[in-house]
Amino acid sequence: MAITTRAEDYSARYNDLVQQADLAEGSSVRGCMVIKPYGYAIWENIRDVLDQMFKNTGHQNAYFPLFIPKSFLCKEADHVKWFAKECAVVTHYRLKNAEDWSGVVVDPEAKLEEELIVRPTSETIIWDSYKKWISSYRDLPLLLNQWANVVRWEMRTRIFLRSAEFLRQEWHTAHATSEEANEEAKKMIDVYRDFSESYLATSPVVGRKPAHERFAGALETYTIEPMMQDLKSLQAGTSHFLGQNFGKAFDVQFTNENNELEYVWWTSWGVSTRLMWNLIMAHSDDQGLVLPPALAPIHLVIVPIFKTAEDLEEIKSFLKPLTDKLDQTYITFSSKYAEMRKKLTRKMDDDTQKTPGWKFHEREMKWVPLRITIWKRDLEAGKIEVFTRATWEKVQMTIEEFSSKIETMLLDIQKLLLQKNKSFREEHTYYVDSYDEFKEKIEQGFVFAHWDGTAETAEKIQDECKATIRCFPNWEYIRDANEKWVDMVSWKDSECRVLFAKSY
Amino acid sequence: MAITTRAEDYSARYNDLVQQADLAEGSSVRGCMVIKPYGYAIWENIRDVLDQMFKNTGHQNAYFPLFIPKSFLCKEADHVKWFAKECAVVTHYRLKNAEDWSGVVVDPEAKLEEELIVRPTSETIIWDSYKKWISSYRDLPLLLNQWANVVRWEMRTRIFLRSAEFLRQEWHTAHATSEEANEEAKKMIDVYRDFSESYLATSPVVGRKPAHERFAGALETYTIEPMMQDLKSLQAGTSHFLGQNFGKAFDVQFTNENNELEYVWWTSWGVSTRLMWNLIMAHSDDQGLVLPPALAPIHLVIVPIFKTAEDLEEIKSFLKPLTDKLDQTYITFSSKYAEMRKKLTRKMDDDTQKTPGWKFHEREMKWVPLRITIWKRDLEAGKIEVFTRATWEKVQMTIEEFSSKIETMLLDIQKLLLQKNKSFREEHTYYVDSYDEFKEKIEQGFVFAHWDGTAETAEKIQDECKATIRCFPNWEYIRDANEKWVDMVSWKDSECRVLFAKSY
Repeated sequence: MAITTRAEDYSARYNDLVQQADLAEGSSVRGCMVIKPYGYAIWENIRDVLDQMFKNTGHQNAYFPLFIPKSFLCKEADHVKWFAKECAVVTHYRLKNAEDWSGVVVDPEAKLEEELIVRPTSETIIWDSYKKWISSYRDLPLLLNQWANVVRWEMRTRIFLRSAEFLRQEWHTAHATSEEANEEAKKMIDVYRDFSESYLATSPVVGRKPAHERFAGALETYTIEPMMQDLKSLQAGTSHFLGQNFGKAFDVQFTNENNELEYVWWTSWGVSTRLMWNLIMAHSDDQGLVLPPALAPIHLVIVPIFKTAEDLEEIKSFLKPLTDKLDQTYITFSSKYAEMRKKLTRKMDDDTQKTPGWKFHEREMKWVPLRITIWKRDLEAGKIEVFTRATWEKVQMTIEEFSSKIETMLLDIQKLLLQKNKSFREEHTYYVDSYDEFKEKIEQGFVFAHWDGTAETAEKIQDECKATIRCFPNWEYIRDANEKWVDMVSWKDSECRVLFAKSY
Repeated sequence: MAITTRAEDYSARYNDLVQQADLAEGSSVRGCMVIKPYGYAIWENIRDVLDQMFKNTGHQNAYFPLFIPKSFLCKEADHVKWFAKECAVVTHYRLKNAEDWSGVVVDPEAKLEEELIVRPTSETIIWDSYKKWISSYRDLPLLLNQWANVVRWEMRTRIFLRSAEFLRQEWHTAHATSEEANEEAKKMIDVYRDFSESYLATSPVVGRKPAHERFAGALETYTIEPMMQDLKSLQAGTSHFLGQNFGKAFDVQFTNENNELEYVWWTSWGVSTRLMWNLIMAHSDDQGLVLPPALAPIHLVIVPIFKTAEDLEEIKSFLKPLTDKLDQTYITFSSKYAEMRKKLTRKMDDDTQKTPGWKFHEREMKWVPLRITIWKRDLEAGKIEVFTRATWEKVQMTIEEFSSKIETMLLDIQKLLLQKNKSFREEHTYYVDSYDEFKEKIEQGFVFAHWDGTAETAEKIQDECKATIRCFPNWEYIRDANEKWVDMVSWKDSECRVLFAKSY
């Protein structure tokens, strides 16, 4: 079955891809998804790299309860305002047989004294523990992460982008000084950038959010904003410098080196299965999924073309020196914060019920970076056909050549995808100085324009153009330091050239 | 702080260990635990090995929803009977401000049409998906696992042994034939045995449960039963051959090779954070935790003894060739179902505020298998002191000797712990033929005795001796095939010599 093309309908194409590449599907529980094995294998690869990066930067994993007592959620005013409107509430702890034996009902006698909220996020329950663990500057910094499921009762759900239950990591770090906490928040957005570029093969704009777009209660929110193929920006990962707000709300104090009591400084940051949306919407083409080799569950598929069982045996014994070697082959992906040595994964597709054409199509759709095709008739010549999904190129080579080249080929594909993604963003990025030009260009991608720093101007632009300020970008995106800093709408002095884009 | 000894009080000792070795603690949510970084690092090591074993035996991971619609739970009669009495029930999806502004309350208008149960286990929601995915024998076998949190509203909770929320893996496999499903259940209990012996370093009795001890609805339940140091048996892992019961309850049929409709055969199996209880109760000694090196978060601690910063620098530069080498050192643990190549993890404890004695004690308590101590005065002699926590031996050696020996040393400790655990079980295992002897020996460990196969006899023994039948053991535990098979209580013909023990 063909998938809808990008030109026809992005939204339909996304649904087709998720379904036909066997990534995930809806479930019988409203808004909750089932992540299927192929989709979950990609998520595991994402998780493993990030986990390694976190550990390499001195962080540790832990696990905190799924449930939050209602009173905890209410300790921080902004926090409860943000999450109370969409949460799953546990009120009872037992079912019983209905009196008329019609089925099973909630037992009214098993009502909880205090309702429990299924965690929409874990700040409140984690800081309840931190309060017990922190008393002196010697207990700091405390750098913990958890990988867990969270629940937000979203009204309009979309697989991977916005689902009632999703998987994620959330870090909560506690520090003795404001500077150290802010540095941590900045470092961790750099980890997300590194992960995006080196593993996800996407090239996000990195920056900090304007005040009106920050996480509730944050002093700074840092963000990575990759461009999707429909020219929208995705808030793919954020890291928050939260000051002392939660420290005060939960009364977490420590004795500093001068023996004075101080509130703890903290940060939080997280990414989720939303990265799957990022992956799909950033890379895939009209023929199916496109996965960077670092995250692909299968690196290589071997398709022998044969009529009889004897033919197949002959092909397999010809390939044996290659397959033996491949089983000992590791591919090393590396970046600033992680080095991943991944065992090469391969699949021999010798199914006798499916045609070669069907097999090619399936692996192209699900994106296996490399494919070997081998015909019985080519055994004498000693060559195999190597197909690269990223470029659609077919090359003949010997099995010795192939086994010596496979690591380079996969690393080259990884680089190529990043390069393509970066070029795509750059080709669709505009620097404009007039609001008229802005209105035109904002339909065509990312726009860097001057802004006076007021929420009013931001709102006006949002109302009129359906675009928001994604971030104050890092300096590297600001190309001319000598230009005039004037807001394009209000003509007041500008705070900075900021990134505007449409988003989800 | 010293921990309670085994001779004094096992139960208090367990609590001391969990607390002082920083593994886990209770939370503000009744019955839910916080798994602290050191405990979670051990759990991650357990999970990684098991996950590798599952993948090596052809299984895949996936993820299914946290919530189970109430009506799903009721589809299988035994299932709902088992789980309805202790489950967390979600009834609402929103909070709102109280009308008197006294706080936040459940919004009565946000009542769910059908209550959702936080999964106590996932059979019902997973089989709801299987029904969509399975139509032909070509879709089988379907071999899926998920790692997830589950909730059972236990009244009496204990950290790791029995908590309201716990972490686990649960497999649900679907097969075309009864034989294949039963073989799968047997193979997976062998995976648990392999994991126990080769990684957990425990030597469980493996067998199958008598009918009255099976999982609700199972045709066979296979089990591993390791002996804890208090001479009790722990049901550490089970695997169930479930026949067609759930296939029928959920109406999951497939077309077989003869084009006939048939119900699917299935199995399920799982282990949980209860393995942490297994680990602690099987190995630890009066001085603290004892961890097999394959699961230990830190393999080596280096304690330099120094007075000045210059001394420390001198020691560090002397050690540099060693530490450089150690950073490139991998330890390979292997077994029937997995090979784990683990990077050596080490910690340099150069804290200036803590005394060497304090450092020694902390690492002995938390069990770091190897420790190097080095004094400034010994630099000239070029030797370091290597301490092995498992044997309390100290040996002098050069850094070259140590770096060439460290892998062997760790693998030897791994073997030693298994050997100790196996000997302990064997020393406390009895073969008895009279009920009088049984009553004496059952206080002292595992007892193999003949049983007539009736629930009545089993109940009588349970009432009188507080011991249950743990399993029909594998043949290897039945030492004499020629003996008379007579029940020790009823004097009727015996079904088999079975394993009796006390348990939790």
